[in-house]
Amino acid sequence: MVIDLNSDLGEGFGAWFSGDDEALLNVVTSANVACGFHAGDPSVLRRVTEQATERGVVIGAQVGYRDLAGFGRRFIDMDPHELVNDVIYQIAALDGFARVAGSKVRYVKPHGALYNAVVSHEEQAAAVVEAVRRYDPRLPLLGLPESQLLRQAEEAGLSTVPESFADRAYGPDGKLVSRREPGAVLHEPDEVVKRSVRMATDGTVTAIDETVITVRPRSLCVHGDTRGAVELARRVREALTEAGVEVRPFV
Amino acid sequence: MVIDLNSDLGEGFGAWFSGDDEALLNVVTSANVACGFHAGDPSVLRRVTEQATERGVVIGAQVGYRDLAGFGRRFIDMDPHELVNDVIYQIAALDGFARVAGSKVRYVKPHGALYNAVVSHEEQAAAVVEAVRRYDPRLPLLGLPESQLLRQAEEAGLSTVPESFADRAYGPDGKLVSRREPGAVLHEPDEVVKRSVRMATDGTVTAIDETVITVRPRSLCVHGDTRGAVELARRVREALTEAGVEVRPFV
Amino acid sequence: MVIDLNSDLGEGFGAWFSGDDEALLNVVTSANVACGFHAGDPSVLRRVTEQATERGVVIGAQVGYRDLAGFGRRFIDMDPHELVNDVIYQIAALDGFARVAGSKVRYVKPHGALYNAVVSHEEQAAAVVEAVRRYDPRLPLLGLPESQLLRQAEEAGLSTVPESFADRAYGPDGKLVSRREPGAVLHEPDEVVKRSVRMATDGTVTAIDETVITVRPRSLCVHGDTRGAVELARRVREALTEAGVEVRPFV
Amino acid sequence: MVIDLNSDLGEGFGAWFSGDDEALLNVVTSANVACGFHAGDPSVLRRVTEQATERGVVIGAQVGYRDLAGFGRRFIDMDPHELVNDVIYQIAALDGFARVAGSKVRYVKPHGALYNAVVSHEEQAAAVVEAVRRYDPRLPLLGLPESQLLRQAEEAGLSTVPESFADRAYGPDGKLVSRREPGAVLHEPDEVVKRSVRMATDGTVTAIDETVITVRPRSLCVHGDTRGAVELARRVREALTEAGVEVRPFV
Repeated sequence: MVIDLNSDLGEGFGAWFSGDDEALLNVVTSANVACGFHAGDPSVLRRVTEQATERGVVIGAQVGYRDLAGFGRRFIDMDPHELVNDVIYQIAALDGFARVAGSKVRYVKPHGALYNAVVSHEEQAAAVVEAVRRYDPRLPLLGLPESQLLRQAEEAGLSTVPESFADRAYGPDGKLVSRREPGAVLHEPDEVVKRSVRMATDGTVTAIDETVITVRPRSLCVHGDTRGAVELARRVREALTEAGVEVRPFV
Repeated sequence: MVIDLNSDLGEGFGAWFSGDDEALLNVVTSANVACGFHAGDPSVLRRVTEQATERGVVIGAQVGYRDLAGFGRRFIDMDPHELVNDVIYQIAALDGFARVAGSKVRYVKPHGALYNAVVSHEEQAAAVVEAVRRYDPRLPLLGLPESQLLRQAEEAGLSTVPESFADRAYGPDGKLVSRREPGAVLHEPDEVVKRSVRMATDGTVTAIDETVITVRPRSLCVHGDTRGAVELARRVREALTEAGVEVRPFV
Repeated sequence: MVIDLNSDLGEGFGAWFSGDDEALLNVVTSANVACGFHAGDPSVLRRVTEQATERGVVIGAQVGYRDLAGFGRRFIDMDPHELVNDVIYQIAALDGFARVAGSKVRYVKPHGALYNAVVSHEEQAAAVVEAVRRYDPRLPLLGLPESQLLRQAEEAGLSTVPESFADRAYGPDGKLVSRREPGAVLHEPDEVVKRSVRMATDGTVTAIDETVITVRPRSLCVHGDTRGAVELARRVREALTEAGVEVRPFV
Repeated sequence: MVIDLNSDLGEGFGAWFSGDDEALLNVVTSANVACGFHAGDPSVLRRVTEQATERGVVIGAQVGYRDLAGFGRRFIDMDPHELVNDVIYQIAALDGFARVAGSKVRYVKPHGALYNAVVSHEEQAAAVVEAVRRYDPRLPLLGLPESQLLRQAEEAGLSTVPESFADRAYGPDGKLVSRREPGAVLHEPDEVVKRSVRMATDGTVTAIDETVITVRPRSLCVHGDTRGAVELARRVREALTEAGVEVRPFV
């Protein structure tokens, strides 16, 4: 049993901070680094890519809508051709910093509303796939199992990595419950830890309506921006190790 | 006698256009492509890098201050460490599109107020040099002769390309007259053509106070955003050829 | 028979221009002035409000999504509570300039994708209505007849002004054909003029499927950003006058 | 002896928070509310103006450069005519929310690098004065004693309010030590409290070179974005009251 631990990092902007990136980099194996469109200014990208590289943490491009005011959490019904280019721009910008740090971008994961959109929005999913195919077809895409994104990526010959969320509620269809709904984010540490282990070992999780759904993740997403997040991520990692799950990057 | 013809391209943004990029690409040998901070959205970058590559025009990163509202024409007294990162971000983003188009970024030229700042601002000049050195030390820097930028670039072991401006007034110190001053931009086509040929063949130009200064450019900058600009650039190129100057990229 | 002529103005940004505002202000009776979120920087707002006031043209706030890169033409699925505040912000900012110019904002008209959204999106329509009600309940809302926006505005006790578009294709349901569809914008001047007169006198227009629909506008929207737009707007105004329609603001 | 306590508020943006606005509003008598250019989205402005109004805290417009990435802390050498309009835009936008909340903007205070610029930059100081004069000449300007801003405001017939900073180091010339210098911000609570009382009662403060300078503030600025800031502001207020100084708004 093997699992990767990924987390969103580099989500500060200018004078605004967001999460203790450095502490989290001591826990996770893959860093989804914001690229400047929903968060992350160039100096944040520089620092996070250097810190990730020092620790051997794999760097992924966390691409999102151009929406600082909405933190990329609002669906934008944009022209798919423009989305292709917005995604290329973001991957390339981050890749520049990763290379300066002595590493490189090794995967791509959509952020926020784009992440949710590409679960079912065919054109936007196709746009993200096209962007990766154009930029570097060796980059795997991280996403929800059964999503349009992963399905289309596989059809295009790209690698895919199905992931589950340690602290997010699921619908019976395997989709994430929207952050606008009550109960969308789990705050009870013991529950988050227990779910994580079960997802990694059994490949199942209990949805918000109590049905049990199959998830079989190769990566597990933990968050760094909630209170006590780093401590919780550390507990998740320890519990996984204790349960005999090897925590290791997917690349 | 050999000269390169460079011009600013890709300076539209979203619904806003700026200059006839495609027509200008048929005239110049080097394209200073905006990278998104002062102008140029990702779809503009995609299109211009593709059109430049098709025509064999060399692509350069036209890096500027993060200032869409000011079009990068306002000096920003920013932290040099942050400027290093802003410049890396821009070069990398454009390089992504250049590579997708089958080419790559082959030089760097600061834009607008940053261009003027690095003539004499030591810390900002050092920041641009540092960014290029970190991103790819093989990239030459295009700038004003005798500028801090070119001097520091040479000290750092980078290649430099001195340029002159076909349609801008010079001070007796070899610096450009500020756009806020009257007479800063020359509009008389015959004069622009004559100055261009003289700069390329004699290496001299008459400054705004009538003194003659030495410039010896390896590249000549023509503009594409003024009325009749493309036609004027074409006349400059023809006049250079007629004067026996070979128009050819510097890389 | 009376009609108002409205047009979108102030849609430049920084160094980027968009339409000949001053010429158009000599033709229209109401100016929908961009407020900075989709277009229009403060200096544009200052100039347009002054020029409108000098000519006695009524100033309206053309409020849109915060999306300069998309020119407000992309639907954003934003929190309605935040939309209320985004709309208040925009009206208030423009009103400041209108007051400095000796006038004031006299109506509100959503722009682009927001305009289309509030035709049927109940929460976003309610948000725009709520913003106007909070800012100044005496301000009428300009919009499509039968839209959620006008319906909810009336229920809230606000004044409403139904408008038609001189140069846009209509669906059989009275909605505008999306700009992404072919034929969405009419370019044939004679057709635009003829449709305008018919809408103002008969209150009807032929939809894209050849059905005749009723529109009965109190205001007619002409555009200023297409080629020859000002000349076309002038022809529309002349044809209306010749047909015995009085061209006069609705406030 | 009377003093006003002012603090910067509303400096979050989208998902990013900055300081405990609500707690600070229970301590200060005047709120310098960010207006969206360096910080503060419309929903932040809505909330802060409502909370300030509920508590009877006076609302001021904290106007800054358009620079979210730099938090308004970087000098921008902008055209003074454009600065006039940027300032009008910000005051007007905030005033809209203040009015919706049942209050209104009662003063103007420049933020960050603009605050420092208008101490000595004549054109930019004149631009801020001109903006206030145009928008509402009854609004007082809050700034550093002996600054260009206050001097020009007085010449223009505007009211002025000299202020001192509880936690910032002073140069012997009465100017603030730049945030880029070591020791620019005082972190020792006892020292901050003691300086505050001395400034309010004696009108003096010890500069960074140990000279004693005269300040005579009518308002004292406390910060809310540093660790323990609210608690410190509370201590400052208590110490002032104990020293017999009445804490009361200046308007």
